[in-house]
Amino acid sequence: MVPMERMVYAFEDGDRTMAAILGGKGANLAEMTRSGFPVPPGFTVTTGACNAFHAAGSLVPDGLWEEVDASVAALEEKSGKQFGSVTNPLLVSVRSGSPISMPGMMDTILNLGLNPKATEGLANLTGDPEFAWEAYRRFIRMFAEIVFGVPAEPLDHAMERAQEANGGSLDEEGLRSLIDRMERIIRGHAHRSIPEEPIEQLHLAIQAVFNSWQNRRAIDYRNHNGIAHDLGTAVNVQTMVFGNAAGESATGVSFTRNPATGEPGLYGEYLPDAQGEDIVAGVRTPLPVSDLARVMPDRYEELAAHAEALEQHYGDMQDIEWTVESGTLYLLQTRRGKRTGRAAVRIAVDMVTEGVIDHIEAVKRVDPDQLEQLLHPVVDPDASFEVMATGLPASPGAASGRVVFDADDAVVAAAEGPVILVRHETSPDDFHGMAVAAAIVTSKGGVTSHAAVVARGMGKCCVAGAGDLDVDYAKEQVSSGEIVVKKGEWLTIDGNSGQVISGHVDTIEPTFDDHFETLMAWADEIRTLKVRTNADTPHDADVARRFGAEGIGLCRTEHMFFGEERIAAIRKMIISQTPRERRDALARLEPYQVEDFIGIFETMDGLPVTIRLLDPPLHEFLPSHEELTHELTDLKVRLQSAPDLASLDAMLTRVAELDNLIAQVERLSEVNPMLGHRGCRLGNAYPEVTEMQTRAIFTAAVKCAERGIVVKPQVMVPLVGFKGELDQQAEIIRRIAEEVLSQEGIDIEYTLGTMIELPRAALVADQLAETAEFFSFGTNDLTQTALGMSRDDAGRFLPSYVEHGIIAADPFQSLDTTGVGGLIEIAAERGRAGRPDIELGICGEHGGDPASVAFMHGVGVEYVSCSPFRVPVARLAAAHAVLNE
Amino acid sequence: MVPMERMVYAFEDGDRTMAAILGGKGANLAEMTRSGFPVPPGFTVTTGACNAFHAAGSLVPDGLWEEVDASVAALEEKSGKQFGSVTNPLLVSVRSGSPISMPGMMDTILNLGLNPKATEGLANLTGDPEFAWEAYRRFIRMFAEIVFGVPAEPLDHAMERAQEANGGSLDEEGLRSLIDRMERIIRGHAHRSIPEEPIEQLHLAIQAVFNSWQNRRAIDYRNHNGIAHDLGTAVNVQTMVFGNAAGESATGVSFTRNPATGEPGLYGEYLPDAQGEDIVAGVRTPLPVSDLARVMPDRYEELAAHAEALEQHYGDMQDIEWTVESGTLYLLQTRRGKRTGRAAVRIAVDMVTEGVIDHIEAVKRVDPDQLEQLLHPVVDPDASFEVMATGLPASPGAASGRVVFDADDAVVAAAEGPVILVRHETSPDDFHGMAVAAAIVTSKGGVTSHAAVVARGMGKCCVAGAGDLDVDYAKEQVSSGEIVVKKGEWLTIDGNSGQVISGHVDTIEPTFDDHFETLMAWADEIRTLKVRTNADTPHDADVARRFGAEGIGLCRTEHMFFGEERIAAIRKMIISQTPRERRDALARLEPYQVEDFIGIFETMDGLPVTIRLLDPPLHEFLPSHEELTHELTDLKVRLQSAPDLASLDAMLTRVAELDNLIAQVERLSEVNPMLGHRGCRLGNAYPEVTEMQTRAIFTAAVKCAERGIVVKPQVMVPLVGFKGELDQQAEIIRRIAEEVLSQEGIDIEYTLGTMIELPRAALVADQLAETAEFFSFGTNDLTQTALGMSRDDAGRFLPSYVEHGIIAADPFQSLDTTGVGGLIEIAAERGRAGRPDIELGICGEHGGDPASVAFMHGVGVEYVSCSPFRVPVARLAAAHAVLNE
Repeated sequence: MVPMERMVYAFEDGDRTMAAILGGKGANLAEMTRSGFPVPPGFTVTTGACNAFHAAGSLVPDGLWEEVDASVAALEEKSGKQFGSVTNPLLVSVRSGSPISMPGMMDTILNLGLNPKATEGLANLTGDPEFAWEAYRRFIRMFAEIVFGVPAEPLDHAMERAQEANGGSLDEEGLRSLIDRMERIIRGHAHRSIPEEPIEQLHLAIQAVFNSWQNRRAIDYRNHNGIAHDLGTAVNVQTMVFGNAAGESATGVSFTRNPATGEPGLYGEYLPDAQGEDIVAGVRTPLPVSDLARVMPDRYEELAAHAEALEQHYGDMQDIEWTVESGTLYLLQTRRGKRTGRAAVRIAVDMVTEGVIDHIEAVKRVDPDQLEQLLHPVVDPDASFEVMATGLPASPGAASGRVVFDADDAVVAAAEGPVILVRHETSPDDFHGMAVAAAIVTSKGGVTSHAAVVARGMGKCCVAGAGDLDVDYAKEQVSSGEIVVKKGEWLTIDGNSGQVISGHVDTIEPTFDDHFETLMAWADEIRTLKVRTNADTPHDADVARRFGAEGIGLCRTEHMFFGEERIAAIRKMIISQTPRERRDALARLEPYQVEDFIGIFETMDGLPVTIRLLDPPLHEFLPSHEELTHELTDLKVRLQSAPDLASLDAMLTRVAELDNLIAQVERLSEVNPMLGHRGCRLGNAYPEVTEMQTRAIFTAAVKCAERGIVVKPQVMVPLVGFKGELDQQAEIIRRIAEEVLSQEGIDIEYTLGTMIELPRAALVADQLAETAEFFSFGTNDLTQTALGMSRDDAGRFLPSYVEHGIIAADPFQSLDTTGVGGLIEIAAERGRAGRPDIELGICGEHGGDPASVAFMHGVGVEYVSCSPFRVPVARLAAAHAVLNE
Repeated sequence: MVPMERMVYAFEDGDRTMAAILGGKGANLAEMTRSGFPVPPGFTVTTGACNAFHAAGSLVPDGLWEEVDASVAALEEKSGKQFGSVTNPLLVSVRSGSPISMPGMMDTILNLGLNPKATEGLANLTGDPEFAWEAYRRFIRMFAEIVFGVPAEPLDHAMERAQEANGGSLDEEGLRSLIDRMERIIRGHAHRSIPEEPIEQLHLAIQAVFNSWQNRRAIDYRNHNGIAHDLGTAVNVQTMVFGNAAGESATGVSFTRNPATGEPGLYGEYLPDAQGEDIVAGVRTPLPVSDLARVMPDRYEELAAHAEALEQHYGDMQDIEWTVESGTLYLLQTRRGKRTGRAAVRIAVDMVTEGVIDHIEAVKRVDPDQLEQLLHPVVDPDASFEVMATGLPASPGAASGRVVFDADDAVVAAAEGPVILVRHETSPDDFHGMAVAAAIVTSKGGVTSHAAVVARGMGKCCVAGAGDLDVDYAKEQVSSGEIVVKKGEWLTIDGNSGQVISGHVDTIEPTFDDHFETLMAWADEIRTLKVRTNADTPHDADVARRFGAEGIGLCRTEHMFFGEERIAAIRKMIISQTPRERRDALARLEPYQVEDFIGIFETMDGLPVTIRLLDPPLHEFLPSHEELTHELTDLKVRLQSAPDLASLDAMLTRVAELDNLIAQVERLSEVNPMLGHRGCRLGNAYPEVTEMQTRAIFTAAVKCAERGIVVKPQVMVPLVGFKGELDQQAEIIRRIAEEVLSQEGIDIEYTLGTMIELPRAALVADQLAETAEFFSFGTNDLTQTALGMSRDDAGRFLPSYVEHGIIAADPFQSLDTTGVGGLIEIAAERGRAGRPDIELGICGEHGGDPASVAFMHGVGVEYVSCSPFRVPVARLAAAHAVLNE
């Protein structure tokens, strides 16, 4: 027979390296004990025991109880207390603790060891019978629910009735009679009583913790967070100490530094004369831990010294639970302290200054995703407010403003102060409203809906798909249950959490400090991947450059067409019947485009600017069919009561216009616009458009170059699937560029390349590379086509797929490295075969996602490009990618 | 200096193998000359000379004129005629002839060698001055246009005026004066005269033919037909003979067998006393060649003997141009004769019987695509009719019937006789109308639109995207220009040509003869690929089996839901709010599904049947938004004048129903339905649907097995991209199958597999093969996703792409072997890595396309599956794939 591995470790027998078998909490308790910190003694049942229990079909492994019982005996000896003693009873807590933290998912039982006799003992010891019987009541309440599965409701109901009958609080007598009643209820439900024998209580409690590893909640949590199901949980059995014992007693939670700001020094809160769970329960308001310095100066000094020692010991900011029991300080737990992005940066940088870690470790310590918090406003964490609905956190930041439901109203209202644009969903027609809004809320759509993408591009807060909101355009109000917010009333949006809050709440603006700059400089030294930005306006380009962007990886030209005069010209272009008419309309647009490009080249002086030619289907530039037919119906009704002939005439003209527009919209409508007439398919159908855009790019480049600005244009052809498509566009671009440059007598180096955003393009990358000098992976569309999944429609099944683990993560947020990534690898390999020095980059939404950045680093691309506010995130993620190699 | 290759070959110096340098026509003239057939002597200028001419920038290669002039001298000696002679002038034709036939694309000049003196000579020789001067007029007309580029209009106008002035026909005087006038016009436009010197005429004519290789028309033709631009054209210079000379003269075109039916024996037509171009011009009605036996029995015997000899010589049916000049028969050209599918089959089989070819050659001789003509009705080739519009030949066949514009009307009218359903486009709502229609016409959509796909599946004639048709539902009429056809009037549809014909035209029904069966049996011996069919009904399955299908490769279950009671049940299922409601609605559908599957299993007794679970997005089962809102608006207007309370009540109930349905339609509407909530994404969201379908499949299988029918079900999960998706569906299918089979105590072997129709599925095929026992390539959707091209929307750019050679062929008709094929190869390789014995098949529309069949044969799949009427095509194509290996 194979000797069974050891299944129980006293705290003094383990250390921090043993999280796999002792769980995170157990390993830390052992480490603290071993390092001489004042930890109440105890022992840990291993994850191996838990796994053996489940492997055997919920059978306790042979020898476990012997080891547990021996450990209890050792504990009794160490503490001088005995299980069930009337003079000095040993009470323990029984807590789960898995190798990877799963907060709140599994069960805890406190005060185990109490029975009527031991309760008398506790009363004797503390001189406080009410405290003792209340502790017993709490124990049987927890034990009944967790071990026997007795529903909480009748037990809580019994207590409420007892409290009512006794005018609120219960004395010993009241508690005893309540406990009698509770025990009857427990017997009624469980057909047995809570065992009096503490060791028997302990055996049952340990089994219950084992079982809680397999409860629905825990399984779902593991699925959701990608935690393996075979890790198992350890069980920590620890001597209870009481922050509500006689004399100098208190309990608290402290951080070794401020977890919100990173400021050095002990931070946290405590309650005098309380048990740990009272802090969590929130019935009493805790005091700042700094008060302790005044009330119990010696204990405070002791705590502060321990805190500093623990931080030194672990080399990171700690989150410590502690209790003072009758003048003695105990540490109950320590763990790595959670922190805000701001605090993470400051702590990492400070610790380098303090010599605790080096700057590589500092860079590693900050999660790139956390950085984004620093770059956007946040809702004041001290404010109280009412959440109407929670949608998807589609674009970070926070804003308060007055509600509007229409883009035009937004423009009007924005002159008076901040506005929040609330829509079912947005379309390019809403662009001017989105541009002036402080935040955008939609009741439909996902994190890659139009609203979300545009908002992120603008670095503007957005909550998308807040399905609980009932947006009523006709009544001009948004409601959720009882809460109704009308046009002009205040709404507050938290794009970090997805919360939609009724009323006005203060927000806190971001600031950049030296810590941030220092950390980013370290990251830049490490990373090899360049970071560019997706920017369509000089303003965005400027923001991104200040965030460290090293060029523009994607300048979308279509957003430039949405100004009032421009949209009129592009609509004229769309309804043109001949190339000549089309050229005339385009000629009106050209000066605008030149102006746009000049602004962007100026801002990006010396850096590459990748400009994508017109991409979206033309119908996106037309008003919606619904809107037009609505206006038409309306007009036809009003026709009958036209006040005079002139008005009638004007109305009739508009009717004709509308009829024509509706016909165009119908003609251009598509069944699957994502797969329709767009990208280079437009440029090939209407070469005039490519000609105009190319002329504008090079005219702008020449004008800038004449003023000494260094321009590096990269002209990018979208949605290429066939080499012939690229070649036709390349012929136009090279011809027009040559025309403009030779006319001006200036030589500007430029490159010509293509998006890789269709699976076919990836497969024929070698052919495309014969023409293209660079590839830019458009991972949004590549994801949509490779997965056959429309990002606008995926909301109906994707969340459930992620929840059930069919897909590890939303592929529109984090790159599907197997499928889409597989195509990228093929394209990179074949592209390099076709042109060894081809420049590779990525410009999809994934450019700002750390996991995706790591993947692209592995593929060996030159740069990633992301929205301006993600640039620092990508810089840090690129450094992490090097460090994790 | 490298010695120049020979640039001119006398006919007697070449042979049939030299098409690359002599062109097809030149090589055949040489072959005939060399084999002793009576060919008027001549010579051929090589394609090499043409290519050298273009390579040098339209400069005549050194030495060419020397070779040409020497060849002319040899010709004069051989014929005893001289260029420019007044007694016996040599006249030649100058014709292009490229290695690959490009009919009508390049230029021809006849009667070259004429000038005023030689015309006198011709008049002397023939004793017919009018004939001679008419010949001269024709020559200068052709020469001026082709060599000098003089516009035809003024020249033709001059002739018309001369004819009018002379009462119709022109005598010698009239011709001479007309020629004077034409020469003045020519000088006015070309600033020069036609050279009198015949050798100079010849040099210019040869250069003109060279140039015609690069004319717009020829370049477009080559692009369209995938012919290389560097082949060049040869130039054939041949002594003229005149079918309108004195004495026994005639000219004709004959086939060695009947090209329409394949019947043996000389077939064709001729004109006595005429030139070849008179037959083409159609001014006189030709006589059947059999008449010649009566009129010129010796010449007929001679011609028949030559025809037989030529067929023997070439081993194939020939198309011969011939002329009798004053009692002497000349053969001017022979080439492989074009033939109908029916004739191709009969000729191939007859030639095996005659011992001319073996049966492998016979199989090779028939183009698979031609077979389809045998399987569908055709428009009577002898009928005359008016074509209203020409659309895409979306589904072959022909039908005449009365027009309807609505599916319900179709059902009513079909009881009276054949109906033609005319729509802008069709949707699943029209299915019942399509099922009863004789043919379907749409004004929008392409060859893979709903109408086209459904029609092909039903083997029903369809013309799609006939954009010239103005379909007016309100007026119940379809019009094109002046032609208006109203509801109930006759329309005839030719799905082979895409023609929409007003009025009734007879059609000819297909018949299968022994020749067909014999050829197919030979093909079956050769092929290794199995051929299955896509069939959703017992009727289709039966048709396909009679056409030789070896199983069903794709049985779509959704088409089964469109019956009246069924659609009500599925709509109820869709609007269900809970799984229980959904199960109740599904329970109503289940008996129908069982019945459907029983019918199919019976028909396919002994053969595998692959059943695809529900695939299309649910909104396809709901009425259209437009339709519903229309009814609602209508109803609301009528509400105000409800005749009584009961009607009002009924109306109000319907209003509520409509409101609810509209809400559902809006809720289910998708931006890109192709990439939306469909395929296994439905089955995973609503496991009840998969459960019901599986239960129906196995219940039907059990009932059939009990009756001794051999059932081989293959259950197929659609639109899988992730292994988890397949696994969830597989769990349900295996569980329900087990339930049904164990309940009935019967063991039926079945397999479980998946479609590969998303690029990601191809990339993770190794993972999918762990669960799937077979893959079926859904090349329609795989093409849409790999190319990012919606087949419903591609009509806007795809035709132009094909025309300009950006894409070689419509990828929805012929597989894109590089892109989509690349993914299929990856999937096949990885799938076999995951499961070495995995069964591979293809069930897209491409399964019936010969080029695609050849590709799939190369990949090594087990079977292709196509619509019933394509089964023989695929069988033959599969044999070709083996022979072309």
